[in-house]
Parts: sequence; C-alpha cells; structure tokens
Amino acid sequence: MTTRAELTEKIIAHKVFNDIKWADVAAAVGQSKEWTTAALMGQISLTKDQIAKVDNAMGINFSDEEVALLMTVPYRGSLPTAVPTDPLIYRLYEVVNVYGTTMKALIEEEFGDGIMSAIDFTMDISRTEDPKGDRVKIVLDGKFLPYKMY
Amino acid sequence: MTTRAELTEKIIAHKVFNDIKWADVAAAVGQSKEWTTAALMGQISLTKDQIAKVDNAMGINFSDEEVALLMTVPYRGSLPTAVPTDPLIYRLYEVVNVYGTTMKALIEEEFGDGIMSAIDFTMDISRTEDPKGDRVKIVLDGKFLPYKMY
Amino acid sequence: MTTRAELTEKIIAHKVFNDIKWADVAAAVGQSKEWTTAALMGQISLTKDQIAKVDNAMGINFSDEEVALLMTVPYRGSLPTAVPTDPLIYRLYEVVNVYGTTMKALIEEEFGDGIMSAIDFTMDISRTEDPKGDRVKIVLDGKFLPYKMY
Amino acid sequence: MTTRAELTEKIIAHKVFNDIKWADVAAAVGQSKEWTTAALMGQISLTKDQIAKVDNAMGINFSDEEVALLMTVPYRGSLPTAVPTDPLIYRLYEVVNVYGTTMKALIEEEFGDGIMSAIDFTMDISRTEDPKGDRVKIVLDGKFLPYKMY
Amino acid sequence: MTTRAELTEKIIAHKVFNDIKWADVAAAVGQSKEWTTAALMGQISLTKDQIAKVDNAMGINFSDEEVALLMTVPYRGSLPTAVPTDPLIYRLYEVVNVYGTTMKALIEEEFGDGIMSAIDFTMDISRTEDPKGDRVKIVLDGKFLPYKMY
Amino acid sequence: MTTRAELTEKIIAHKVFNDIKWADVAAAVGQSKEWTTAALMGQISLTKDQIAKVDNAMGINFSDEEVALLMTVPYRGSLPTAVPTDPLIYRLYEVVNVYGTTMKALIEEEFGDGIMSAIDFTMDISRTEDPKGDRVKIVLDGKFLPYKMY
Amino acid sequence: MTTRAELTEKIIAHKVFNDIKWADVAAAVGQSKEWTTAALMGQISLTKDQIAKVDNAMGINFSDEEVALLMTVPYRGSLPTAVPTDPLIYRLYEVVNVYGTTMKALIEEEFGDGIMSAIDFTMDISRTEDPKGDRVKIVLDGKFLPYKMY
Amino acid sequence: MTTRAELTEKIIAHKVFNDIKWADVAAAVGQSKEWTTAALMGQISLTKDQIAKVDNAMGINFSDEEVALLMTVPYRGSLPTAVPTDPLIYRLYEVVNVYGTTMKALIEEEFGDGIMSAIDFTMDISRTEDPKGDRVKIVLDGKFLPYKMY
Amino acid sequence: MTTRAELTEKIIAHKVFNDIKWADVAAAVGQSKEWTTAALMGQISLTKDQIAKVDNAMGINFSDEEVALLMTVPYRGSLPTAVPTDPLIYRLYEVVNVYGTTMKALIEEEFGDGIMSAIDFTMDISRTEDPKGDRVKIVLDGKFLPYKMY
Amino acid sequence: MTTRAELTEKIIAHKVFNDIKWADVAAAVGQSKEWTTAALMGQISLTKDQIAKVDNAMGINFSDEEVALLMTVPYRGSLPTAVPTDPLIYRLYEVVNVYGTTMKALIEEEFGDGIMSAIDFTMDISRTEDPKGDRVKIVLDGKFLPYKMY
Repeated sequence: MTTRAELTEKIIAHKVFNDIKWADVAAAVGQSKEWTTAALMGQISLTKDQIAKVDNAMGINFSDEEVALLMTVPYRGSLPTAVPTDPLIYRLYEVVNVYGTTMKALIEEEFGDGIMSAIDFTMDISRTEDPKGDRVKIVLDGKFLPYKMY
Repeated sequence: MTTRAELTEKIIAHKVFNDIKWADVAAAVGQSKEWTTAALMGQISLTKDQIAKVDNAMGINFSDEEVALLMTVPYRGSLPTAVPTDPLIYRLYEVVNVYGTTMKALIEEEFGDGIMSAIDFTMDISRTEDPKGDRVKIVLDGKFLPYKMY
Repeated sequence: MTTRAELTEKIIAHKVFNDIKWADVAAAVGQSKEWTTAALMGQISLTKDQIAKVDNAMGINFSDEEVALLMTVPYRGSLPTAVPTDPLIYRLYEVVNVYGTTMKALIEEEFGDGIMSAIDFTMDISRTEDPKGDRVKIVLDGKFLPYKMY
Repeated sequence: MTTRAELTEKIIAHKVFNDIKWADVAAAVGQSKEWTTAALMGQISLTKDQIAKVDNAMGINFSDEEVALLMTVPYRGSLPTAVPTDPLIYRLYEVVNVYGTTMKALIEEEFGDGIMSAIDFTMDISRTEDPKGDRVKIVLDGKFLPYKMY
Repeated sequence: MTTRAELTEKIIAHKVFNDIKWADVAAAVGQSKEWTTAALMGQISLTKDQIAKVDNAMGINFSDEEVALLMTVPYRGSLPTAVPTDPLIYRLYEVVNVYGTTMKALIEEEFGDGIMSAIDFTMDISRTEDPKGDRVKIVLDGKFLPYKMY
Repeated sequence: MTTRAELTEKIIAHKVFNDIKWADVAAAVGQSKEWTTAALMGQISLTKDQIAKVDNAMGINFSDEEVALLMTVPYRGSLPTAVPTDPLIYRLYEVVNVYGTTMKALIEEEFGDGIMSAIDFTMDISRTEDPKGDRVKIVLDGKFLPYKMY
Repeated sequence: MTTRAELTEKIIAHKVFNDIKWADVAAAVGQSKEWTTAALMGQISLTKDQIAKVDNAMGINFSDEEVALLMTVPYRGSLPTAVPTDPLIYRLYEVVNVYGTTMKALIEEEFGDGIMSAIDFTMDISRTEDPKGDRVKIVLDGKFLPYKMY
Repeated sequence: MTTRAELTEKIIAHKVFNDIKWADVAAAVGQSKEWTTAALMGQISLTKDQIAKVDNAMGINFSDEEVALLMTVPYRGSLPTAVPTDPLIYRLYEVVNVYGTTMKALIEEEFGDGIMSAIDFTMDISRTEDPKGDRVKIVLDGKFLPYKMY
Repeated sequence: MTTRAELTEKIIAHKVFNDIKWADVAAAVGQSKEWTTAALMGQISLTKDQIAKVDNAMGINFSDEEVALLMTVPYRGSLPTAVPTDPLIYRLYEVVNVYGTTMKALIEEEFGDGIMSAIDFTMDISRTEDPKGDRVKIVLDGKFLPYKMY
Repeated sequence: MTTRAELTEKIIAHKVFNDIKWADVAAAVGQSKEWTTAALMGQISLTKDQIAKVDNAMGINFSDEEVALLMTVPYRGSLPTAVPTDPLIYRLYEVVNVYGTTMKALIEEEFGDGIMSAIDFTMDISRTEDPKGDRVKIVLDGKFLPYKMY
C-alpha cells in the first residue's frame, strides 16, 4: 500500500524532474500557491475535481488509490520530529522558541486574552528585493479569537 | 541569586499591576515594541543606557545585579518545553509543523536552496480591523541566505 | 503481512473514494456510530458476524488475514506521537493539558477521590446549530470509580 | 519570588483546610464553577475586581505581588509532563489517545474539514445518578472552525 | 512554601531516624500497611482525623500547612522519570515492559476485552520463606472492567 | 525477511481466527500458560522440540526461518513506547508509577536493602469470582536479592 | 519507491565495494570533497549536470527516479537520533555540549551579539602529521551575522 | 548551598558589569582564552593557585565554598537541553546534525576506522576580516584514535 | 530542607577542599573504596555506626537531618539525564550502546538465557601501568541468573 | 535493499539454526570472540578477506551487496532505544546509571581529570565458577586520556 508520505515524495520528485512550478499547478487548480502546495504536501484534502486539475497540470496520472489518499482529510503534521532538523524550517521554529513569549505579550496587549487562529488563517510568502541581499517576507494573517467568560 | 527568568517575571508583574504598555517602554528606549519586548522577555541584551531608560519609564529601580543580568547576552529560548503548551504560542508552532514543508517548498522555488535568516530579521505584529472579527497580522521579514558551493 | 494500521488506511481510503458514511456502516452493524468508527479505526475488536456486516455495507471483501486482524483485541492507541500533531486532535489534547487540573478539582469536589472510567464509558458527538457558527458538542459519560481504603 | 504554581498550591491548600467549595467561590465571582476554578488553577487571568471577590469569598488576603500574578495572562498548561501521570487526568488523555482518530473522523464527516475550537469553548462537568454507580458527565462545546481555501 | 514532595521526604527521614515501622503507623490509622504507606508517600489523601492518628503514632507535630497538604487529593505519580532509575522499581517496570502483552493476552482470553481496574484495586506485599532465598510476593487484585458496545 | 514482531502478529492472528486457547498450547508444550504465552509473544526463546509441539498444537507449519527466530534469545521488550498506550497495559504501568515508592518502602522495611528479582520470577494470572464483578488477580513472585557490602 | 536514505546507502555500498575515493568523485564534479560528500550523503541537492558527472566517475548508472531524488532539495538532517550514537559523530556533539557556552562567550566577546552562519559557511577536514599520533583538523568558517536593533 | 551553575552565572554577571575580558583573565592564569573560559563556564576544574589568579584578575573575592566548587572536577555538559535552543549554539549543533555523516565519511576515508579525540583536543576561535562581513573561524584539532583489532 | 543531592555535593566539596582520599574514608568504614564512594555519592544507605566513622574520618560534623538522609535507602540513579553528558560517564554508556548486543550474545552463548546480576555484584577499578599510557581497568563481576521455565 | 540491521538478524538466525559458536567463527577470523561478535553484530567493519573467512566458517554464502555492507564502517549504536529494554543489557545500563558518578570519582582520584578511552579499549567476557552460582566477569580495559591545559 502507498502511504500519503510516499505519494508526497512521488509528487515532488515528478515536479523536480520535469521542472514544474507550484505556482502553475496552483493556477490550474484556481487557488493560491500556498494553499495548493500545502495540499500536495499532504496537509489539506482535495476534491476529485481539484485532483483532476492537478493531474492535468502535472501529468502524473494518479491511480484510484492515490486519488483516495488525496481526497482523505490527512492526519496533519509535516515534520518527522518535534524539533525540525532542516535548517530552513528550524529557523521558523527558532522564531517561535525565541520570540514566542514576545508575540504572546504583544498580541495580548493589543487584543486582550486570546489566540490567533491557525485555521481561519492565510499565509503569503513573497520576495522583497534588497541591494544588500533579497529578503523573504512571510505574512501570517489569522483571526483573533478571544477567550470567553461563562 | 536572581535568575534571568525570575527577573522577567518581576518585570511582567510590575507592568501588569501598574498598567504600563510595552509600546510606551519601547518609545522611551527608542526601539520598536517588538525588539524592546523581546529584550525585557530575556531574549536580547540591553546596554546600561537602555536599561536606565527602561527603568525610568517603568519605575522598577533595578539593582546592580539586575542590571548585570539585563546586560548579559542571554542563553536564548523563551519556552519551557520543546513543544509549547500555551495555546497562543502553540498555534504558531502548529503553523511551522503543518505548513513547514510548504514554506520550504515555496521559498526554494522562489530563491533556490537556502534559508530565511532568523538573525538579520525583523518582526511586526499588528491588528487588522475586520467586520467578521479583527485579525492578527504577523510579518516575518528575513534576509535570504543561499547555500554555496565551494 | 498486513498490519492493523495498514488495514485502517485501506478502510478509510475505500470509504472516501466511494463516499460511504460511518453512520450507515454503524446502522448495518447495529451499534452507535462512535463505537463502530472506533472499531474500524483499529481501537476495538469486532466479531466475525460484525465483520461480515461491515463488509456487506462497505463492499471491501476482506481476506481471512484481514478478518483475523479485525477480530484481534488491538494494542490500543491511535496516535503516532504522545503529543498529537493534527490540529483537530491537538485541540482535544489542549483541553486536557490546560483544563486537566480544573476537571480533577471539580470531579473530586463533587464525587470525592476517584476517577471517571474510560472503559465503562460512552461518547457522543453531535452538531448544535448556532447562528454565529455551528458548534461541535462532545459528551463524555463515564462511571465514577472511587478509590477505596483497605 | 512567588511563582504562579506556588500561588495555585497555596489557594488549594487554603480551600481544603477551610472546606471551601469552588462552586461558592464561583458564585461570588459571578461566573461558572468551571471558569472560576480554571482561573484559580492558573490557566485564566482575573481582573482586579474579580480577585477582590475571590479574596472576599475565601479569606486569603492576597499580597500585591499575588494580585499581579493573578492578573497576568498565564503561560497556559497545567500538567508537569506531556503524558499525565495522575490517573484521573490520564483517563481523559487516554480518551484522546485511543479515540482521537475516531473523533476526527466523525467531526469531519458531519462538518467537513476543520476543527472544534478550544477557545470559543465551554465545558460543563456534572453528576448523573445511576443505580449501578453514579456517572461523571463532561460536555465539551466548541465552535466549529472550517479550513478555508484561498 | 513546603511542597508535597518535601513533606514526603521529611516523613521518611523522621521514620528512618526514629526507627518507626510503616506497619505500626498503619495499625494506628486502622488501614492496611499498603494503603497507609501510599498515603504517606503522597499518593492518597488523608482526613484530618487520620492525620492526627499518624501524628500521634510518629510524633512529627504537623503544622497546619502540612495538614492541608496531606488532606489535598494529590496529583498522583511517585516517580521522577517516565522510566524509573531505581533498581527495585525498575524491576517492576521491566515486568510490565517485557510481559505486558502476555498479561494482556491472558486476561483477554479469560475475561474478554476489558481491563483490570487500578482504582477498585488492592495490593498486598508479603514475604515467603524459601530455603534457596526468601521471596517477595506481590498480589495485585483489581476488578475486571469490560469494554461495552453501545 | 520476517521480523520477530511480524511472526508474533502472525501467531496471534492464527490463534484468533482458529479460536485456539493459549492454555491448550501451553499444555502441549508442558509449561505454564504464562511462560508459553510470553514465549509466543516474542519474549522468551524456545527449543526446537518445544517449537515442534507448538506447531503441532496450533497447525501453523513454521518455516525454517521462523523456527530460527523462535529459537533465538530475543531482544526483550514487548511495548512500542516507554509509556504504554494500551489501556490494559497502562493500568499496570500506573500501578508502578503511582505505587512504586510504596512498594519500595514496604519491601525494604520487610527485607532490608535489595530488590525483587524479575528473572528468578514467576507470574500467575487468574480470575476470582465476585458478585460485584469478577476480579483479576496477578501474583508476582520473585526471589529477594539483597545488596551486599564488599 | 526508493527513499533518499536508501539511495545514500546504495551509493556508499557501491563506493566501498569498488574502492572509490570521495576526493576523486569531487574532482570529477569540480567542487570540494566536503561539499560533494555532503551532497551524496543526502544533505545538498545536485544539478542534472553534476549528477551526470558523479555517475560517470562512480559508474552507478542512476535511474530517472534516483536522478530526481538527487535533484530535490532534501529535508536536511543526517542523523537518526537527536543525540548521535555513533562514537565519531558523538565526539563532535560532545564538543558542542561541553564547550558550547564557551564558544558563545568568546564569539560574543570578539564580535558582539550574533551568530556564526551555518549557511554562508565552509568546512575543511585535513590531517596533520604528529609524531605522537596524527591529528584530525576541522576548520569551520562562517560569516558572523549580528543581531540588529529595529 | 551554591551550585556550580549559580557560581558560573555570578562570574559572568561580574564580568559583564565590570567590563572584564576573558582574554585578560586567561593571560593572568597563563593559559589560552579558550581553556580559561571553559573552566570559568564550569567545564574544567582549576587548582587553588589558578583560582587565586582568577580572583586577582577579576576582583570577585571567592568564598571557601566557591573555591571548592571551582576545584572539583565538574559533571560536564553546559547546555540545559539535548538540542540547544540558543541560536549561536544551535548553529554548531546543526553543523553536526547536517554534516555529521559527511565528516565521518571523510575522516574515515583519510584515517581508516576511528574517531577524533574530544579529550586530546584543542580549540581556537578567531576573527577573519572580510569585506563582505567578518567571519568566525573555529579550528578543532584532535588526535586521531584508531579502533583496534584484538 | 536538605536533599540527598545537596548533601552529596557538600561531601564532595569538603573532600576536595581538604584533600581527603575516598580510599582513606573507605578504610575508616572498613569496606572497599568502590562501595564506600557509592554510598557517599547517594546510591547506598549507611548505618548510624558507619556514618559516625565517615564523619570521624572526614571531619564534616553531620546534623541529625543529614544522618537521617544517609541512613535512608535512596531512590537510586546518579545521573541527571537518561543519556549522560559527562564525557567520562558517557564513554561507559557508549560501551553499553555500541557493544550491548555483543555482550548479550556472548553471555548467552556461555551461560544460556539469563542476565548478569547488578545486585549480587562487585566492581573494582584499578590502574594498569603501560609505557604507551597507563590504562583504566574496570572489572564488573556479577552472579549469572538464569531465566526459568515454569 | 538489505539494511545492515537485517543482515545482522540473518547472520544470527543462521548461527542459531545451525548451532555455530561465535568463538569458532572468531578462531577462523583470527581475532578475539568479543571483536568478531561485535563486527557481526554490525558495530565494526570487516575486510574482504575477513568476510571470506567468516563465510567459510559459517556457510552463509554472502552476496556482493552483503559483502559491501560488512565492509562499510557502520553508523554505530546497537540498541533501538536510548534506555535499553532488554533485561541483560539494561543491567549494564543500570550499572552506569547508578554507579557512574562513583566510577568518575574513583578514576579521577587515581588518574586526575580525564576519561577512559572507549576506542583504545578491549573487552573480555568470561565465566567464573562459584558454588553459589557461576558468575559473569566483564573486564573493560581502556587507555586513560588526560584533559590537557593549553
């Protein structure tokens, strides 16, 4: 049996070997590149119709078993360890570990007690040109959800 | 002996009891609220001069031992466990855990192999008004650092 | 050899691809949807007769090896890590982590020293309509078991 | 310096020694017993006014430092280990560990892909009389938050 | 503030220095030596009356704060690590680790699917004389609780 | 290649599907049901002769490779995680975790400093009928081994 | 499907059996032996052209699937556990664990607050002859990145 | 009682507040700055004579208890967690995690099977000026110890 | 309250400052240096009489509370983490980790299935002079305990 | 692909089924039984010539892929978990855990600050006859490596 993780690797290898862009697959699906990539990375389920569009854009020719895997709401979590070892992903974890209490303090000062939703949430990743070296800009935008008294 | 963690708790309790804003302390220091809060949360060292400005703005009256602690480059890391238990901070960890491979895929598609710096890095936390509920917007902006062949 | 985990994935993929409802499978078995889903998720053993009813309702055509797996009392535990990474399941873990001592305090105030059974126990999951957004209602109902002096 | 954990222990010891009921403290504060107990267990912050009412009902005579601790939004998480060792709390963790994937499957069948909020959330703990032994009933009631395409 | 762990150490040191037997303390309380020792080891709460009897038998002269600690239902768990390091206790853990699936298989063959209660439960520790070396006999006696269909 | 764990699963599935009793297999081997089950659970090695008797009683028809696996002294440890997730086995772990220091205190009071052997050791699992619900009785019987001065 | 880890093992086994030197493969690729070995150990991605040169030098005859794996930016991290068990690699970890705070203190004294990049970074491993036994010399050379105020 | 960790913090705070250089303390002791800093960080024991020189150079006025702590061979290990959270130290850990198998492969190709000693070992940390940003250069120099047949 | 760990540190600091030898303390107690050191390291309990001899030889002047601690059977385990960080102790752990299965294979080949006792056990540590560098010789000598059929 | 772990299992199964002694294989290779067993357990690499001798003595008929695996310097570490679960190996770990600080204290008293090498190291396992039960004798003999000032 194929696992979701193996299917993810197959999709990535196919993309790399054929030099396909996530942005182009996203355009075919009609969603943002962030949402589409997350779906193909095994973190979001797709409909049969969206899978057909992905297959059309990438030329993978999914089997029925693979379609079923892509339709299933996944057990989310994309990292093999609680603390990531990949340097790019670790830097994001480092931001949470070092600045987490700072973010908590500032969000609570501005909004009161509550959280930023990670569900009613969008993410945008872009490049800012800079003569001293281009910069990565990640915007996380989530609804504030206040704790309630009852 | 006082530890840095105990000093952090003392500063927070003083702030809460006297209803002081991080933004006002930051204005007194002359840096952003994000940088200043992180310093007082024990993640960044301050100069003697900056500590005097903080003390002036907050009215804590730091001892010499406390000043020395605030001047020392801290052993960074603000969380007591590798996986955070506080719901606000956990949501940020969840973003890294669920969308980490997505962020990696998109940054590498745009920039090639490398990382977003967590050192040459700024962070901005703000509120976006929204009729369906206001939103938290977190912007992470770091220099892209490419891996090099040698 | 097939493992119980692989069989679980096969059953889920079959369900998703063919758009079968857990509630319908449960009706065929003659038990609640909570009990039946837990059994097919690999947490409860089934009898040969119940397996035949499941097979009839789902059309999977289990092999003898698969029937044996479904008949075996499983080594229970449905999560791959001690702290769940899937956001839906994490929220339930968060309730235990944040409110666990509260639940303990209130149950002990009401009943004295003891526990709520997780064996003589039923679970009910339902939807409450709400104009501000529908709500999930989870009812856990377990026998109180007092500690005894001896 | 007093920590929040030490203050929690002090409040509990005072309650036990003087035979005070959480329900009575909650009535004095004007909130549910679940919310009030969670606050005094160090998981929710209180206002100065609410603290005064607690103090009035319990007769503890909080110091300014203790009031500041109770006013501070806590770093949430009430358990000393990721897997709880206390049998009462472990039983709740066991429910999540054994039935977590079942709950996920049923919530997703009913609502689609999303989560039950642990923030816009209430909890109710009560006793059901039963001739075979009284039962504990825990109702968790949280808003469903759907994942969004973007 | 005294913690429950510190009080436990104080009671043990007092017992050792004054050569008091747990069995004699238990006789004064009117319960088994297993139950009484577990209570004084911080795993079971005592009533004011039982505490007075313990104090009478041991001559410790508990303060009010210590009485409150002994009255409080403890957060149970007597070991500092998930895998015990003390050789005596490790041997018991080893039995669970090596023979756990055997015990599960035999209990389920005899009783069907369910568990042995660790709450409606007694424990008896005794010595069996044996010319090849005396033996420790531990009897665990718990009610069988069957899983139920619903 | 087959692993010992896979062979264990194969033996269990065969037993369940054909409704064979461990006690009957044990009678064929001429050892207790506890010892025999532990051996087939992969925790004790068997001789060629004993394997032949097992095969005769169960009708599995072991291959040479499987015989070699059953003859090999296994790397013992029957649980996939340090803290068991299966509720039946967890209850035994809970006894060690909650009552471990109690057992240590009572064994040392009776015998002096030392341990109960987990090697020169027998285990007996039986049913006690009880009108309030039958009980599981587990007897652990191990030689006391004293620490020595030298 | 082949995983990157399996491909790494295949490359190493081929190298060992045919007595190929990493230095010779590196010369064929036109990069340092450190960079080339890291790439073939699965920590750096290669271009199609570089892969062809590797294949030419080693005579492995990579399949298209293997080429795709070598082209993909890997999820970095070459060790199976957070604390390495291999003695050679453990010694390096020991240096970080024992002397980490020393390195931090000296780098901060020389450069101020910041880090040594592990991305804009080269590594050189060489042999120094020594009559008392030859020595391994590892030079780590990374750009200093200062923390910034903002 | 003072612990070694508390004494380390006291020494660092004293150094920072009085703007003392590790290099100057090392010159007073007559050893390298790397060795001297490691000793004061609690990783190497000092003689009474060396402690007197440190005290002279820093003006701390150690008590007898503090002298005894500095004379004791420490339980080495300078980090509070197995995976460091401080970004500077993490980068060194990252080098071991990502390039560890590469270093192993190259050392073994050059020297045969064995390790680089972390005991017969020196470390040198220096600054290299570079117009694109100065660089940190860390040289680890350890004796090669071969595995032996016997 | 003093803990056993703090008392251990006090004894070591006293020994180091006054240049006392473990071997001389052992001679005063009338046991081996290995046993005596282990007792003072907090791993073995001492009698009142032995404590008096230690006190006489070392000149510490133990308080009654300290005597009680030394008389108590300790919760054994001398290391702060499951994997030791101190290089000397780690090397011993490395021997177990790397050669553990080898030791198991050879002991079982010689003795059959069973273990080497760590209770009926002596340890001897000595120096062997060697022109290429003196050697540490550790002899572990434990009774073989066979597994039994029953 | 075969892994080194699978090859180790194959060699052991072959040895057990054909009743071959490690000592005889060692004699064929011309090394000690300890070294030879460790090599076949996957902890030491063998030369082509040694592999041929092993194959001759055992009659396994290794494939080229298997020869390559045996020639490769392995990633050492023979245990599946940081704390061993096998009782025989655990007893050795227990010695390190309970007596580790004792061994450290005695080696440092005899030799000064340093370690016992685990590389320039031999191990000898033998049987001592004893009327009260034969004993296992393990001799660890390693070069002392002193820490150096520089």
